[in-house]
Amino acid sequence: MHTILKSNSKEVTIGIDKPFVIIGEKINPTGIKKLGQALVERNMDFVKQLAKRQVDWGADVLDVNVGHPQIEEAEVIPLVVEAVQSVVDVPLCIDSNEPKILEAGLNAIKGGKPLINSVNGEEKQLASVLPIVKERGAAVIGLTIADEGIPPTPEGRLAAADKIIKRATKMGIPIEDIIIDPLVMTVGHNSVAGTITLKTIELIKKEFGVNMSLGASNVSFGLPDRHSVNAAFLALMMQAGATCSITDAIKLGSAIKATDLLLGKDMNSIRYLKYFRATEKLREIENSTKQQK
Amino acid sequence: MHTILKSNSKEVTIGIDKPFVIIGEKINPTGIKKLGQALVERNMDFVKQLAKRQVDWGADVLDVNVGHPQIEEAEVIPLVVEAVQSVVDVPLCIDSNEPKILEAGLNAIKGGKPLINSVNGEEKQLASVLPIVKERGAAVIGLTIADEGIPPTPEGRLAAADKIIKRATKMGIPIEDIIIDPLVMTVGHNSVAGTITLKTIELIKKEFGVNMSLGASNVSFGLPDRHSVNAAFLALMMQAGATCSITDAIKLGSAIKATDLLLGKDMNSIRYLKYFRATEKLREIENSTKQQK
Repeated sequence: MHTILKSNSKEVTIGIDKPFVIIGEKINPTGIKKLGQALVERNMDFVKQLAKRQVDWGADVLDVNVGHPQIEEAEVIPLVVEAVQSVVDVPLCIDSNEPKILEAGLNAIKGGKPLINSVNGEEKQLASVLPIVKERGAAVIGLTIADEGIPPTPEGRLAAADKIIKRATKMGIPIEDIIIDPLVMTVGHNSVAGTITLKTIELIKKEFGVNMSLGASNVSFGLPDRHSVNAAFLALMMQAGATCSITDAIKLGSAIKATDLLLGKDMNSIRYLKYFRATEKLREIENSTKQQK
Repeated sequence: MHTILKSNSKEVTIGIDKPFVIIGEKINPTGIKKLGQALVERNMDFVKQLAKRQVDWGADVLDVNVGHPQIEEAEVIPLVVEAVQSVVDVPLCIDSNEPKILEAGLNAIKGGKPLINSVNGEEKQLASVLPIVKERGAAVIGLTIADEGIPPTPEGRLAAADKIIKRATKMGIPIEDIIIDPLVMTVGHNSVAGTITLKTIELIKKEFGVNMSLGASNVSFGLPDRHSVNAAFLALMMQAGATCSITDAIKLGSAIKATDLLLGKDMNSIRYLKYFRATEKLREIENSTKQQK
């Protein structure tokens, strides 16, 4: 099953027979103070810098989130979308659970077919977000959350995915435009958090064959050497059947390209070698910039 | 199925329900010029240093190989085994395909139950190595090589494993003392090398349920940024069902401990956190030694 996202000039295909798709996570003020400040001041230079850097390091799509206590999100998100589009031409993923903010972000996108992040299995969310997805002809990420919260078992999360898929397809949204997020909690608090998610991926793959996305870095929250855990989890979830991830291309691009190669999705290592050469050059440029300072 | 290895004082259990076992690969002059030179001179100080370092960094077992053009292996291997045993107390793995060298190495081991690396599916090897395994009551690594060479398909490698297991068990070697190596070639030369090995692991797991070992670093031969490929492959092969690896604990210990944690084999992250703290201290010591120089 293929989910096709489009910008004005680029098309990105997500599918189990395709290389893994990286949705760059960095246009999000949570955890990046400097971005929060820039958004409060409506200064888009830093946004442009972040967007360009993620794409240079291999992001195929960019997630845009402006959640911040001092920001009127619906007013700021169009400015951010425009700023991002002025420097890169990848498809965008508008990230909010507020219909008003989603619409404001979507309206600022020039054309193509964006991704909406996200809906979940709660009645209120299904009712408010799915009509926007349908009207815009967008694709959507469906989080496996039920009215009672995040189901602790793979079967519970499968049921939440089932609810989202049934409701969306009944409204006429094609099943290939629904990307399910099986969710991952930190293994730092619960030693079976990883296996629950991997099992959920396998169940959803078998039952629906839809594309699946994960925010890979949650899994290591609270642990030291988070990179080792995140990189290993990416490999495991790719093998289980996840096809894209909202993640930091700069930190995890190499692990993803290596896993694509090992899973037989990179004939003659072409993408792996190209990525290595491109990022090697970027590393050199960054190092020489640092030395000049 | 559990393979139990023993030194005089330590027992190591290899099994799918146990944390992954690291067989330290560094006591091997191939690729370590300084070790080759030390062995030629019969100077065991560097051997002791390497052995201690691998165990400090998490090796559960140590592989001992003295293959070098200028060395009479059967004479040198007892010296190396004794040197290693004088500084660490982990079980050993004697690495050669020459019966005379294997026997010389095994005779120098104080007691316990060592591992023999390796036999393969060639008639000549089966006939010469299995009697040594049987007589010593050792465990053995069986490489999935047939009389015609390395089978290119998972089914061919399964057949080679079948031949080794049948022949060994017929001689009275318990099946749990046979560890199969499904072999991995570099993905740099063949884009499906990784998937062939992963599929082989799945077939052998399903058919025999025996323990499996891989030399993980072959997979990245000839590629840049080998670490990303090796670390990702370790995660993939662990998920598929491999239970131990002859590898460099210093480079890949973190990736292995992270994957154990993600696969639910590390309750309350105890081993992961312990490994991080121990190696953090080792890194500090190494850095301060470097600065003093």
